[in-house]
Amino acid sequence: MQMKPFYVYFLCIIIFSSCNQNTPAKSQDKDQTHLEHPNLILTKDGVNRIKSNLENAPLFKQTLEVTKVEVDAEMANGINVPLPKDMAGGFTHTQHKINYATMQKAGVLFQITGEEKYAVYIKDMLMAYAKIFPTFKKHPVERSYARGKFFWQCLNDSNWLVYTSQAYDCIYSWLPSEDVTYLNKNLFKPYADFISIENPQYFNRIHNHSTWGSVAVGMIGLVMDDDDLVNRALYGLKTDNIDPNAKDNDGGFIKTEGQKAGFLANLDSPFSPDGYYTEGPYYQRYAMYPFMIFAQALHNKKPELKIFEYKDGLLIKAVNALLNLTDADGEFFPLNDGQKGMSIYTSSLVSAVDIAYFYGNKNQQLLSVAKKQNAVQLDETGFAVAEAIHAGKTAPFLKESINLRDGSNGDEGGISILRHNYNDHSLALVYKYAAQGLSHGHYDKLSFSLYENGDEVLQDYGLSRFVNVEQKNGGGYLIENNTWAKQTIAHNTITQNETSHFNGNFKLGSENHPELYVFNVSEPGFQIVSAKINSVYENSQFHRTLVMFKDSISSNPFILDLFRVTSSERNKYDLPFHYFGQVVNTNFDITTPKTLHPLGSKNGYQHMWVEGEGNADQGVMQFTWLDNNRFYSITSAANTEDKYVLTRMGANDPEFNLRRDPSLIIRRQAKNTTFASIIESHGTYNPVTEKADNAYSTLKDLKTILETKEYTAVSFKIEAKTYVFILANQDASKQKEHKLNLDGTDISWNGPYYFNTIK
Amino acid sequence: MQMKPFYVYFLCIIIFSSCNQNTPAKSQDKDQTHLEHPNLILTKDGVNRIKSNLENAPLFKQTLEVTKVEVDAEMANGINVPLPKDMAGGFTHTQHKINYATMQKAGVLFQITGEEKYAVYIKDMLMAYAKIFPTFKKHPVERSYARGKFFWQCLNDSNWLVYTSQAYDCIYSWLPSEDVTYLNKNLFKPYADFISIENPQYFNRIHNHSTWGSVAVGMIGLVMDDDDLVNRALYGLKTDNIDPNAKDNDGGFIKTEGQKAGFLANLDSPFSPDGYYTEGPYYQRYAMYPFMIFAQALHNKKPELKIFEYKDGLLIKAVNALLNLTDADGEFFPLNDGQKGMSIYTSSLVSAVDIAYFYGNKNQQLLSVAKKQNAVQLDETGFAVAEAIHAGKTAPFLKESINLRDGSNGDEGGISILRHNYNDHSLALVYKYAAQGLSHGHYDKLSFSLYENGDEVLQDYGLSRFVNVEQKNGGGYLIENNTWAKQTIAHNTITQNETSHFNGNFKLGSENHPELYVFNVSEPGFQIVSAKINSVYENSQFHRTLVMFKDSISSNPFILDLFRVTSSERNKYDLPFHYFGQVVNTNFDITTPKTLHPLGSKNGYQHMWVEGEGNADQGVMQFTWLDNNRFYSITSAANTEDKYVLTRMGANDPEFNLRRDPSLIIRRQAKNTTFASIIESHGTYNPVTEKADNAYSTLKDLKTILETKEYTAVSFKIEAKTYVFILANQDASKQKEHKLNLDGTDISWNGPYYFNTIK
Repeated sequence: MQMKPFYVYFLCIIIFSSCNQNTPAKSQDKDQTHLEHPNLILTKDGVNRIKSNLENAPLFKQTLEVTKVEVDAEMANGINVPLPKDMAGGFTHTQHKINYATMQKAGVLFQITGEEKYAVYIKDMLMAYAKIFPTFKKHPVERSYARGKFFWQCLNDSNWLVYTSQAYDCIYSWLPSEDVTYLNKNLFKPYADFISIENPQYFNRIHNHSTWGSVAVGMIGLVMDDDDLVNRALYGLKTDNIDPNAKDNDGGFIKTEGQKAGFLANLDSPFSPDGYYTEGPYYQRYAMYPFMIFAQALHNKKPELKIFEYKDGLLIKAVNALLNLTDADGEFFPLNDGQKGMSIYTSSLVSAVDIAYFYGNKNQQLLSVAKKQNAVQLDETGFAVAEAIHAGKTAPFLKESINLRDGSNGDEGGISILRHNYNDHSLALVYKYAAQGLSHGHYDKLSFSLYENGDEVLQDYGLSRFVNVEQKNGGGYLIENNTWAKQTIAHNTITQNETSHFNGNFKLGSENHPELYVFNVSEPGFQIVSAKINSVYENSQFHRTLVMFKDSISSNPFILDLFRVTSSERNKYDLPFHYFGQVVNTNFDITTPKTLHPLGSKNGYQHMWVEGEGNADQGVMQFTWLDNNRFYSITSAANTEDKYVLTRMGANDPEFNLRRDPSLIIRRQAKNTTFASIIESHGTYNPVTEKADNAYSTLKDLKTILETKEYTAVSFKIEAKTYVFILANQDASKQKEHKLNLDGTDISWNGPYYFNTIK
Repeated sequence: MQMKPFYVYFLCIIIFSSCNQNTPAKSQDKDQTHLEHPNLILTKDGVNRIKSNLENAPLFKQTLEVTKVEVDAEMANGINVPLPKDMAGGFTHTQHKINYATMQKAGVLFQITGEEKYAVYIKDMLMAYAKIFPTFKKHPVERSYARGKFFWQCLNDSNWLVYTSQAYDCIYSWLPSEDVTYLNKNLFKPYADFISIENPQYFNRIHNHSTWGSVAVGMIGLVMDDDDLVNRALYGLKTDNIDPNAKDNDGGFIKTEGQKAGFLANLDSPFSPDGYYTEGPYYQRYAMYPFMIFAQALHNKKPELKIFEYKDGLLIKAVNALLNLTDADGEFFPLNDGQKGMSIYTSSLVSAVDIAYFYGNKNQQLLSVAKKQNAVQLDETGFAVAEAIHAGKTAPFLKESINLRDGSNGDEGGISILRHNYNDHSLALVYKYAAQGLSHGHYDKLSFSLYENGDEVLQDYGLSRFVNVEQKNGGGYLIENNTWAKQTIAHNTITQNETSHFNGNFKLGSENHPELYVFNVSEPGFQIVSAKINSVYENSQFHRTLVMFKDSISSNPFILDLFRVTSSERNKYDLPFHYFGQVVNTNFDITTPKTLHPLGSKNGYQHMWVEGEGNADQGVMQFTWLDNNRFYSITSAANTEDKYVLTRMGANDPEFNLRRDPSLIIRRQAKNTTFASIIESHGTYNPVTEKADNAYSTLKDLKTILETKEYTAVSFKIEAKTYVFILANQDASKQKEHKLNLDGTDISWNGPYYFNTIK
């Protein structure tokens, strides 16, 4: 009984592999289509090529073997399709996730190994799903704005359909046609309708959720050759009646009036021309899989769309952008809602890298990423990667300084990364002057974070959530994501009068963004980025400039941070530095309280305990700490009335959801002012030799020597040298000539800034 | 000018290497002695063997090359012998450390490479020291109980002399005799007298300081063939007039009346017959170098002492004990005053391992440690190790469960380590029922700490000090070492009525110690250690039993912790668990305060903020946390009036010296009671796949079912199985028959405990 369809399958290969040699995979007559599968991700030609060249692609072979072990182990547990009950992290949720992941892999194994047990497993599983699908309306948990079927939210159901479509495609030709008809009618078509027509508030918007939704509908549409579904996926629902004031679980608007929807709209809008995804790298990583896998499917079945050339090769650029948005360990910078630890090792990046290699001019730098990932996608793209690695084509993936514009037209701010690489050591400064980032955006304009190698030095808190840890709110977002993680004070940027940027108003935040003023990384020893925004507070203008410059004293560069604020009012400005580790020394006295009180009552301030306070009693503030066996210092030009507040997170946190991380806040009452600081990684501690090298900062006499509407100038000393940095505040043109007399010395230069040593 | 002595030196090798073949290195006629050097650590024979077999010892060759690069780089800086001025971590301190380390290495390089520049460097350096030595009396900093010469404390001066003696020995025969006479008279003899006669309170005691002191005097005595100094080193000063109430900087007594002194006494007393050093592994590591290097020198020059056979091969056992007192990363357990991060990679362990290999029956397991260290001592011992590694003799160093007795006769308590090794994964429980541990001892009887692989799960805080970080109290001990780190509440053991063990009285602590009750690790799936002490509080008796047992549900064992307290009074008992990471879930409600107050006012309690409190509202308390991407739970049988306190360190810490680590305290008012808890490492979190595996404890219904003078019994459920553990409290004999009726079931067994599943 098992052997018959197997022969049939082999016969098909013989017939169609010869047929296909001269006919590229295009929409075929309906009659033939049934016999041509797989044609979605795997293709018949591809499978043949893989089978006959396996020895030249050891990484592919290894991935295949690992996959076989995984799938065989899971198949030994039998078919388990429980009625939906649990939230994320719970049993039924986890089981359904295991099911789709295993089916997708089993499909590949069926095609490549030819072992029919994999096809039987998928069929049995699908029949079980089809059986219970009509027996209930929705998942019983009522927490999502878009409740799913087998999962608590449509998002996970879409995951299911994206993966399962691939499994289905792999056995489509093998299945008796009455089973295909049955499954299409009783499971796949109604499932696709459920995700789209029955949940327009989920399907018909610009959001990573909707990307998954449209890809789910599109993938199964391609498998079933249902053009109606494919068009719905590409262009969205024509009508949806979504209330323009409706919001999702994350507090983001569902849809603004007149907004487009569907896969192509989700490619147009959240991506910038540089491939930056406005929600941030954590969600880009998540969305990358459906984007890339559907593009691959469209390329195979609808090559006339030329999807990989869409918007000047956007998808390939997006993969490159994402790989650049990582620290030295390959972990994504947790901009906006991002869970720390997510990295290029995630399976969606394995897909993305392989697809980008195959369809994107065979960039050999991607091969070194694939090598680190130590796995490839089990299709022709992964096979090509494995072959190329085996052929010795690998080139190192170089992460240099980069500017990534935000906004669909690239005119809504962006992210700049200044990097310094020295031997195996790297320093990366991530400057965020991006747009709001949809519902996963945080209120932190002009913030930055700092990395040394794979370690955070000055952190972005990331999200407040324990993804898939059921005990923590079912693995979903925690209250503290809104009350802390999204607030401005949780980031390394200025909060004015204890109120978050845009007063935490999502609409206002979505309508505004900073403007880049200067970006120049042409000299590795002097890199600069500068951006402005006038809309975060009424009547106040922010202008922050970050310079990464080298001095011969140290192999690490120094980071100069000039944050200029002008306002029509006198305000309280708080500039935090969210460091890690232990205080080594301060040049100001710290008063420590007998009892701890929160720093404030709202906008994140309620979550910070005040552990210590100090006053500016000298012209310069210096703060040295030890973290990861490295000595760091912040040196900052002080105003006489400045306060320094040492805080620790964790106040008003009844569920112990927040990490207990420390911060140093520079607090200043002023109207117009410049916060001038220099950050150094200057020394190391070795707990084995117990040697402290360069435990002291070498920086002295940092001061703001000029503050006018036109210019900001600072000077500071490193050993015997005195440096001067001048910024032209109003004119960023490179040609513009400037002339100043500073302390009796005439200085003239062209362009927006001047940097030099003086006597 | 450079070549002449070089020829002389070669001539000497030829003459004496043949002479020595039949005459083992013993005390020679004074006339010959001058010509025989080196004879301390390096020997002429040894040097020859090394030179002619270098290709068979690649690790030795590599270490030699690294050393050459280091020394050449340092020599390029010229001779720098500054007048003493700074504390630890400061410039002059660091420079003098660099000097002795470089001289020692240069001596070896001179001998092995024959390049005379190294001898010249040492000579010039020594002349510079001899020149300024008589120009001042002591180091200007007045903080030590034993102020040094070039360093703030005699201890560092002893380090200098131990290393420099070796360098001096290497050039002794090369130096013109008038230089030898000059240096002996003007530098070395007076320096040795300074360290001993002029500082009896430092030299003449049982302490790691005195070990360094006696070895310093002994090593230079051996070089100069000054038997007076050698005997002073071995047996101490005959008279010292030390006040028996005098204390050192760490609060330890200098010397009790009638106590012996000198190197041999320091070998007798702080070491137990198992090689455990009563101060703890951190200080054992520090003392190991002088012990081993002087033993090697004595073996070479006074073989009649048979030093490596002393006390049944104590020194070799000590190295084995020390290697066992490490976690999976080779880091020492920070018992008593121990700085975390110190490990087998420290240079003193390279020496110790090589010397122990060479003089201790060539234990091949030590070769794998040497291989990890990736360096050897540059003498015949290190050469033998490198040769053996090259010859493929390496065997893995197996860390099994072990009991190490404390006290010079092995009858003053001890340290037990229960280990579970599973593939590359290990769990290690360190139970401390040791003696006070001299001045570096902490007040934590019957405490334990827990490690998973190289990570701390339940920590011992270690010391409060930043060794050699000058900004932190000159790198010395911080006030918080006494007010926090030494206090009982800083450890995972019971504090009664907010008072530390022995009321923190060092004399009382030194006079008492726990007694081992049971230790049995014969079955890997059920390991037990149990100990008692009646003297930590008046009228109270402590008895703690720790069991590491396996159930098939998990690859990790469970840890059962039974802490029985009996008293004639009703007391407040606090049992803390010093965990790391984030609270995931508790089965009790936590009330979090609006402001944070310290838990108490003294004995360490003043340093703990109360972050939350809860009450026992169920029969069982369960607390789950996430650390290092692992899920852990403590489950504890609850009394109805129990309180749970969640604390964080850092209160009353004006200098920010303490880490902000969390703790869970079980607080109980009772007279006689048993704290019955089970600790599990039950799950993992993967931030890349975002999968939470086994996030929930599987343990249920833990309860104390019997508490009598004779027996303590607990039962608990793991899935469907119910376990019972019974401890006979009063009789630990293996033969003793016991019979009990528990809940209608008759149970009988032999020996101190019973462990089984019941229906």
